[in-house]
Amino acid sequence: MSMHVFEQRESDVRGYSRTYPVVFDKAYNARQTTEDGREFIDFFAGAGVLNFGHNNARIQQAVVEYIQSNGVTHSLDMATVAKRQFIEAFDRVVLKPRNMVHKLQFMGPTGTNAVEAALKIARRATGRQQVVAFSHGFHGMTLGSLACTANAYFRGASGVPLQHVTHQAFGCETPCRGCTLGCGQPSLDRMRALYTDTSSGVAPPAAFMVEVIQAEGGVKVASAQWLRDLQSLAKEVGALLIIDDIQAGCGRTGNYFSFDGMGLDPDIVCLAKGIGGWGTPMAMNLVKPEIDRHWAPGEHTGTFRGQNLSFVAGREALSYFEDDTLMNEVKRKGEWIKNALDALAKRHPILEVTGKGMIWGVNVGSTDVSKAVVKQCFDDGLLIAGCGTGGRVIKLIPPLTIPDEDLQQGMDILQKAIARALEAA
Amino acid sequence: MSMHVFEQRESDVRGYSRTYPVVFDKAYNARQTTEDGREFIDFFAGAGVLNFGHNNARIQQAVVEYIQSNGVTHSLDMATVAKRQFIEAFDRVVLKPRNMVHKLQFMGPTGTNAVEAALKIARRATGRQQVVAFSHGFHGMTLGSLACTANAYFRGASGVPLQHVTHQAFGCETPCRGCTLGCGQPSLDRMRALYTDTSSGVAPPAAFMVEVIQAEGGVKVASAQWLRDLQSLAKEVGALLIIDDIQAGCGRTGNYFSFDGMGLDPDIVCLAKGIGGWGTPMAMNLVKPEIDRHWAPGEHTGTFRGQNLSFVAGREALSYFEDDTLMNEVKRKGEWIKNALDALAKRHPILEVTGKGMIWGVNVGSTDVSKAVVKQCFDDGLLIAGCGTGGRVIKLIPPLTIPDEDLQQGMDILQKAIARALEAA
Amino acid sequence: MSMHVFEQRESDVRGYSRTYPVVFDKAYNARQTTEDGREFIDFFAGAGVLNFGHNNARIQQAVVEYIQSNGVTHSLDMATVAKRQFIEAFDRVVLKPRNMVHKLQFMGPTGTNAVEAALKIARRATGRQQVVAFSHGFHGMTLGSLACTANAYFRGASGVPLQHVTHQAFGCETPCRGCTLGCGQPSLDRMRALYTDTSSGVAPPAAFMVEVIQAEGGVKVASAQWLRDLQSLAKEVGALLIIDDIQAGCGRTGNYFSFDGMGLDPDIVCLAKGIGGWGTPMAMNLVKPEIDRHWAPGEHTGTFRGQNLSFVAGREALSYFEDDTLMNEVKRKGEWIKNALDALAKRHPILEVTGKGMIWGVNVGSTDVSKAVVKQCFDDGLLIAGCGTGGRVIKLIPPLTIPDEDLQQGMDILQKAIARALEAA
Amino acid sequence: MSMHVFEQRESDVRGYSRTYPVVFDKAYNARQTTEDGREFIDFFAGAGVLNFGHNNARIQQAVVEYIQSNGVTHSLDMATVAKRQFIEAFDRVVLKPRNMVHKLQFMGPTGTNAVEAALKIARRATGRQQVVAFSHGFHGMTLGSLACTANAYFRGASGVPLQHVTHQAFGCETPCRGCTLGCGQPSLDRMRALYTDTSSGVAPPAAFMVEVIQAEGGVKVASAQWLRDLQSLAKEVGALLIIDDIQAGCGRTGNYFSFDGMGLDPDIVCLAKGIGGWGTPMAMNLVKPEIDRHWAPGEHTGTFRGQNLSFVAGREALSYFEDDTLMNEVKRKGEWIKNALDALAKRHPILEVTGKGMIWGVNVGSTDVSKAVVKQCFDDGLLIAGCGTGGRVIKLIPPLTIPDEDLQQGMDILQKAIARALEAA
Repeated sequence: MSMHVFEQRESDVRGYSRTYPVVFDKAYNARQTTEDGREFIDFFAGAGVLNFGHNNARIQQAVVEYIQSNGVTHSLDMATVAKRQFIEAFDRVVLKPRNMVHKLQFMGPTGTNAVEAALKIARRATGRQQVVAFSHGFHGMTLGSLACTANAYFRGASGVPLQHVTHQAFGCETPCRGCTLGCGQPSLDRMRALYTDTSSGVAPPAAFMVEVIQAEGGVKVASAQWLRDLQSLAKEVGALLIIDDIQAGCGRTGNYFSFDGMGLDPDIVCLAKGIGGWGTPMAMNLVKPEIDRHWAPGEHTGTFRGQNLSFVAGREALSYFEDDTLMNEVKRKGEWIKNALDALAKRHPILEVTGKGMIWGVNVGSTDVSKAVVKQCFDDGLLIAGCGTGGRVIKLIPPLTIPDEDLQQGMDILQKAIARALEAA
Repeated sequence: MSMHVFEQRESDVRGYSRTYPVVFDKAYNARQTTEDGREFIDFFAGAGVLNFGHNNARIQQAVVEYIQSNGVTHSLDMATVAKRQFIEAFDRVVLKPRNMVHKLQFMGPTGTNAVEAALKIARRATGRQQVVAFSHGFHGMTLGSLACTANAYFRGASGVPLQHVTHQAFGCETPCRGCTLGCGQPSLDRMRALYTDTSSGVAPPAAFMVEVIQAEGGVKVASAQWLRDLQSLAKEVGALLIIDDIQAGCGRTGNYFSFDGMGLDPDIVCLAKGIGGWGTPMAMNLVKPEIDRHWAPGEHTGTFRGQNLSFVAGREALSYFEDDTLMNEVKRKGEWIKNALDALAKRHPILEVTGKGMIWGVNVGSTDVSKAVVKQCFDDGLLIAGCGTGGRVIKLIPPLTIPDEDLQQGMDILQKAIARALEAA
Repeated sequence: MSMHVFEQRESDVRGYSRTYPVVFDKAYNARQTTEDGREFIDFFAGAGVLNFGHNNARIQQAVVEYIQSNGVTHSLDMATVAKRQFIEAFDRVVLKPRNMVHKLQFMGPTGTNAVEAALKIARRATGRQQVVAFSHGFHGMTLGSLACTANAYFRGASGVPLQHVTHQAFGCETPCRGCTLGCGQPSLDRMRALYTDTSSGVAPPAAFMVEVIQAEGGVKVASAQWLRDLQSLAKEVGALLIIDDIQAGCGRTGNYFSFDGMGLDPDIVCLAKGIGGWGTPMAMNLVKPEIDRHWAPGEHTGTFRGQNLSFVAGREALSYFEDDTLMNEVKRKGEWIKNALDALAKRHPILEVTGKGMIWGVNVGSTDVSKAVVKQCFDDGLLIAGCGTGGRVIKLIPPLTIPDEDLQQGMDILQKAIARALEAA
Repeated sequence: MSMHVFEQRESDVRGYSRTYPVVFDKAYNARQTTEDGREFIDFFAGAGVLNFGHNNARIQQAVVEYIQSNGVTHSLDMATVAKRQFIEAFDRVVLKPRNMVHKLQFMGPTGTNAVEAALKIARRATGRQQVVAFSHGFHGMTLGSLACTANAYFRGASGVPLQHVTHQAFGCETPCRGCTLGCGQPSLDRMRALYTDTSSGVAPPAAFMVEVIQAEGGVKVASAQWLRDLQSLAKEVGALLIIDDIQAGCGRTGNYFSFDGMGLDPDIVCLAKGIGGWGTPMAMNLVKPEIDRHWAPGEHTGTFRGQNLSFVAGREALSYFEDDTLMNEVKRKGEWIKNALDALAKRHPILEVTGKGMIWGVNVGSTDVSKAVVKQCFDDGLLIAGCGTGGRVIKLIPPLTIPDEDLQQGMDILQKAIARALEAA
């Protein structure tokens, strides 16, 4: 009955309210509570947004104080104190230690807007139109970014041909079961041949748009060597390397960027989701100055590009990266998850486990099993969702701040649900 | 000096921080204050977002209470109490009184995302690709919506051809000076002929995407008769009528929708900006059920489509429409602005004045004069911006809640600035 | 029975063999004879190719002599004696008297190839992509030219969106009955406004592609003033003027070019059909040197671009333009046709008559009537075809060399057929 | 001096008249003679058109008789006796012995038109837009076919993005030196994976457009196994197999079709060049009935689609396939060429030799060497041309009817020229 208004008035496009047919009210760290008091452990974290938990106390306090002081809430790209503090913190905590000189671009506060802006400036700076994205990649739903997104279900809603983007096989570090796209020992030789042979029919692209971990795509982890090769190829053919770190960045893998320590120097990094700290929207691109200078003032705008609550919350979130505490915790808890999943996969060889840090995927082999797992988890008090083709991969992305006991409880629910669903299958 | 970090680290694409080279800190209703205490009257309202003023006390209190109660902040499209309350309020206050049965679609919380979703479903529902937008229209910056945006400066940044959208002349209610696009007595006969003649080379479109008042386009006000004709033409050729009410809706014109009272029944209405109440992002489409049913679950998503702070603030803002108080105020203050501008135009016949309710434009004839006006206003303590081709139209969109004394003071500054700039020209 | 093999083995796309279900064998001047001896007067002339009649004796002799001397038949774009003689004759007879300095480009020997080459070089020379073509225009069937062709039936077979071409209303010299596209007093003000207003959403095109008489489009005759205005507009906005004179050129209107005497100086003229003299394929573009120099060698090729039988026949055909004899005949016979049709239209006010020289159209008002007319003519020994939307316009394009008695006999058949079909309707 | 008029009046796009700066006049079988009596052996055969030699006596006589009897020259797609005789001969000699039930479609008489028609019907029949063509492929110069052509030089002249076609690596039977596209042991596993994985970002195409021997692309010979695999893949994913046999068909390889004997059953075969017998234009597609039925009458037309001189000549040429005499000759002479080239390559290991029947390529390693070879051959009385990327491959395509002494003399000139050019390099 409490769902009635959604069924009556909300668009048929609604999704998660079908999977989780309850009305949520409160949330704290890794737990969400419905209006009638049902409590859930959250292994979903708002699709990877809530790295620092629901209503993180530190962030909550800073935001409330900001609001109560009549701080500017909405400012487009005017300068504000809150924005300056965020930029300074990001510079000090993230960029300087990595000797990154990238400029910060703020656009409409969604990941898709970050991707669209990256596509524009990459095409402008190179004078080329074609962009290469990768199989199983997810980059958003607006027309430009949707052309980069690989999933046929999403692409099918475009209503017009998706153009100026070509997809190539993604370079997984380990071979996915049954995959014939070449993962496990990915090579770029064929791509290099295509871009350097003037009779190949394929011109060198403006950019390669790639995720280090394809989160929506099924928690596929790129080979670091393949990424370095891709970077070399990009340089060789005059293309840019754009890393979409929207879901895997902001600490999710145990480092700030998912590509930390891999010897990569991307021309553009797209950030959103976790950057806003606690769930208010924000997006930001890091763009090398020599590329950024191709922008003229105001050429890419967006009404909500100056979200000061997100600047305040985001700055507070950055304090988690002033020392190694949280990242060490991510590594520790990540190891814990991995071990548990590996043990499960040993018992159920049909399962494939991939991931890093605190993002893990369990390919359960079929859409039906996956649905059964998600449903069982929900019934038992765990919010978790499928990803990848047909949703066959159960994705674990709890808040990085999840307490051990919640993690344990969630893992117990999950393991039981998987075992049960596999038996029933 | 305080701007240093923005100049050093923020992208060259930044715009307003160049026009207003100060660092804002606090804001309340129609006033913004810089970190060093300079106070500005705000005739810009965050590009039309802040209809109910900065830090509206009612909204502020509701939001803070929500946060402090650990209300869910971010929920994708899961059901939440805050969302349900928003939907119920919107239904009661806006839809029911107008007998509108539209479904509510929530997507990524930006106007451009609303437009992209509208384009998708219009193309899906009609099986057609081409969309007709109008000269001087503004609909966003992502690839799909940018194709609808008319301004060559924005279009030039796309990096790829903008396709599947054709532009036609907009039907202004009064003839713009020097305009030969046919405004003043707009006719759709030629368009009808194109769409109904199978040898015209032009097929009937999926949809007409139109603003009732082109805000970014230079405060151009559509003829109501032309809009009705457009609706008839749409029906006749099997196309949808999409009204982009992102800037002119939510009470700006003295009614909730800019098209209220015009005998229009749009198939889709795009809303954003003011819908979120106080500056946190939100976007929403109203879609007729027979069109909405073409969506499959999750075909158009967006991480930040469940912004509960915006639901809370937006619900609070809707209470302004429970009775006529605010809308009467808008009409009164709108009349006041109009009279003042008309008097100014009488003294300076080069000026053209257009608008309705509390959105007004003064075409000062040249980019240079416009820049001088904006600069002078800024120096004298008024935030205001140009719009339209070359920014030649000074746009007045103060918060609807602006106190009379602030409105008076702002108008004084503006009139002096215009007079001075015209004399200097 | 004799049609059996066509019905069995030829593609379903075949058209004229359905309209004229007989097997032709011989042909001379304006007469075609079937294998079983049925004779037809030809008001169709191979869709406007056979300006100098079937098997024109002069041409036939020259071609046979060329063949029997082992003259080179096929030469790509190597230099040949026959080609040089053609170029010299064309220069002397056509270009020099008009002070035209255009370069001659030979491509694949079809009209559509001429149009494709014109589109390429216009886009290259201007650096723009969009081309403007006109309602009811016909420019070919390959993807680039098909985008310029207006008819929805042809466009519908493209299989992909037809892009980079926009259609505008054609400027007929007299108002077509029921037409609301503005013909009769065509104005380019709206187009000028679109191309010069940087916020119109419409950028100035690379070129305007126009026919002086839209032959396939229903024998629509452009206003000379409108064409001059179009030329001015093109210059003003930096676009090229391309005249597709494929069907109306080569003497059809009583002058060599259909635009002779109109004060036009097109940047590119596309020629095919009649240029080859007697029905062997040939196409040629006239391109101003400052545009032509944008070609690099071999950038647009085509295997059959050096057709020496066509050069020989075409050179012979050019001798008809050494003096005024043929053109005076065309004017005389054209006047005769016009008078006859006008008289018919006086008796049957539903008829609309348009045309010039020896290309005339009779709009009979409906597809059914048109089909009945064509069928009746066929039964009575006259080959004639419909054109325009739904084929409603009966098109008269006999060989320019048709003997008076054949013309008279054909006109008699036609008038009777129209009268009868209208009565039956 | 005799070239003057070409330099003055012909477009800068002209190519072969630069390579061979003489004016040709007469030609017979494998020899061309200039106006001043210089004689050349022809290893170029009009870019593969003149399979049966210049002015083939049998064909010449039949054509002259046809002309002198006032046979219909030009007939669009009306039925004619000459066309029926061609169709009957083609059916008897080519289709029936192969149990091919394809329909015959005649379109504008150029190869590019055949390809454009094939693309249209493939997209129509499958309801898909994307077509897959292959690196180094050549399919024509009009917009649709140019999108299939791989060479960047040709593609660069399009003026608009080339869309709806993707290029994949071609499956050469032997590894090209230095090629990293995978030739030599081509596999379609990756392509299969792309088309069958719904998250690959790549949808199954409407068709695969492939040459069995890429003539313009550098005489690259496809692996028969790879072609069979491609056919299987096409069937598996619901795509059509289109073989462009325009240059390699009509007996060039020692069989009528280049794919004879390979176990292939293409859905569409594109023919042009040699089909017209002696150099007059003609093109024809073979289309399986179940695909052909998707055409409506007249949906793809072309003025010159009824070339009766070509039907007469083409029918005469078909008589060469009534018995094995010519094909045996082709095999014998092909072997001769191969042996001579292999011997040459043994002496000059930098050379790569590829080919089959009477189409052979010698990759001389660089554009400069190739140009020197072509120039030297020309000086010594042999017409030959480069192909492939940078024209590095000398292509041998003499008339199939070349006398042994001409072949010997041509081979002598060529071998000397190559040796000399390599020494000078």
